[in-house]
Amino acid sequence: MSKSNYVTGLRAVEELLSNQAAEVRRVYAEYQTVNPRVEALIAAAHSRGIEVQPANRARLRQISGEVRHQGVVAELQRSTVLDEAGLRALVEAHLESADGEKLLLLVLDGVQDPHNLGACLRTADAAGVHAVIVPRHGAAGLSPTVSKVAAGAAEQLPLARVANIGRVLGWLRDYGVTIFGTSDRAEGSLYDMDLDRSLALVMGREEKGLSKGVAARCDDVLQLPMRGKVSSLNVSVAAGVCLYEVLRQRS
Amino acid sequence: MSKSNYVTGLRAVEELLSNQAAEVRRVYAEYQTVNPRVEALIAAAHSRGIEVQPANRARLRQISGEVRHQGVVAELQRSTVLDEAGLRALVEAHLESADGEKLLLLVLDGVQDPHNLGACLRTADAAGVHAVIVPRHGAAGLSPTVSKVAAGAAEQLPLARVANIGRVLGWLRDYGVTIFGTSDRAEGSLYDMDLDRSLALVMGREEKGLSKGVAARCDDVLQLPMRGKVSSLNVSVAAGVCLYEVLRQRS
Repeated sequence: MSKSNYVTGLRAVEELLSNQAAEVRRVYAEYQTVNPRVEALIAAAHSRGIEVQPANRARLRQISGEVRHQGVVAELQRSTVLDEAGLRALVEAHLESADGEKLLLLVLDGVQDPHNLGACLRTADAAGVHAVIVPRHGAAGLSPTVSKVAAGAAEQLPLARVANIGRVLGWLRDYGVTIFGTSDRAEGSLYDMDLDRSLALVMGREEKGLSKGVAARCDDVLQLPMRGKVSSLNVSVAAGVCLYEVLRQRS
Repeated sequence: MSKSNYVTGLRAVEELLSNQAAEVRRVYAEYQTVNPRVEALIAAAHSRGIEVQPANRARLRQISGEVRHQGVVAELQRSTVLDEAGLRALVEAHLESADGEKLLLLVLDGVQDPHNLGACLRTADAAGVHAVIVPRHGAAGLSPTVSKVAAGAAEQLPLARVANIGRVLGWLRDYGVTIFGTSDRAEGSLYDMDLDRSLALVMGREEKGLSKGVAARCDDVLQLPMRGKVSSLNVSVAAGVCLYEVLRQRS
């Protein structure tokens, strides 16, 4: 977790607890102290239902990455959930950044099962996806099950919940992002696609596949070879195979 | 499902029901018939608790692939579970066959979770794996949960349950099969490996990774790039990424 998730020092943490307590996940504080401000701060956190963990000076330094912590460090909730405007800002910032890294987005067009959503988030994070896009309605949302299966990715990876996936794909194309759908009825193989470009990979809903409106927005639809008796892969496995092929082609 | 899973004809199905009823999954029979032997056969199946499905002549021909079915077709339970000797026979038969297809085996070194085992079977089947190898003790075994998650693969894909994975890897190497382990602490990347050869891919247990005895048997240990905050992929996703890279290199 990046150090920017932490706020250190008495004054900063006091202000945070007074004005933005909802953004504080927990407070680390030195317990064996004679400083009444630290005592007051611990009481303030408790009164707002925020967990307080005792920590010595070395631990506080390690957590915050700062020496001058004055005995208190607050860990922030980092909201990773974006709306459509937030997604657009993220995409613009990425495309304008100087590092030249190509954009990689994962679009889940109506995944229903929380385990599948969690597994997709874990896989997307591992593959270096910049944001996952899901519909605001008619799909699994964030939940404790999703968080558990995602193994930390749900708290880290930007997740955009949007009203209309098709419209988002439309403006992504205007930004020069190529849209690749996946379908077991597609003609093109994953391995015939040029994936070394800014792209969004769209996975359909379990069983049903891509919706018509979304399929129509895709620049290309690809399939994975199926060599056995089963007719499809689990959505998180299919996403993993596709995303790692992107990584391979880009490396 | 291959046609070899079906037995057709009155005499053959009568004998099967008399002597090996446990191997019959269900019977398809023509109901509107005046043949008393078909009637007797339906009664015999029912009395042994075997499901009987009515089917007309065209359907029986389609199911069995044979014209001379005499109004009855029995579908066999195909046991896909092998012991070490059965696995050796499968490997020998494959290596001696003339089609030149390279062997592809998936070894799960102690996967604990039935969902993970099921997901691995589904993924392995899709990728054209010839057999999955698991330890007989200390790991998830076949169960209704595994079957459900495997989406049909558990009834199709040979699954070898062996007492000692290390020993099996030893004789597989004697047959010229290359053993690739996976580990998040490995030095070599998946994409630097020559996978266009007969090989066994070994996935470790959730969290713990490869056991020492098994790691020592590997010709090479590879890792997948991890670009995000999570430290590992789900075992079925990691297996899928590796197995599909094998397919890509072989195609």
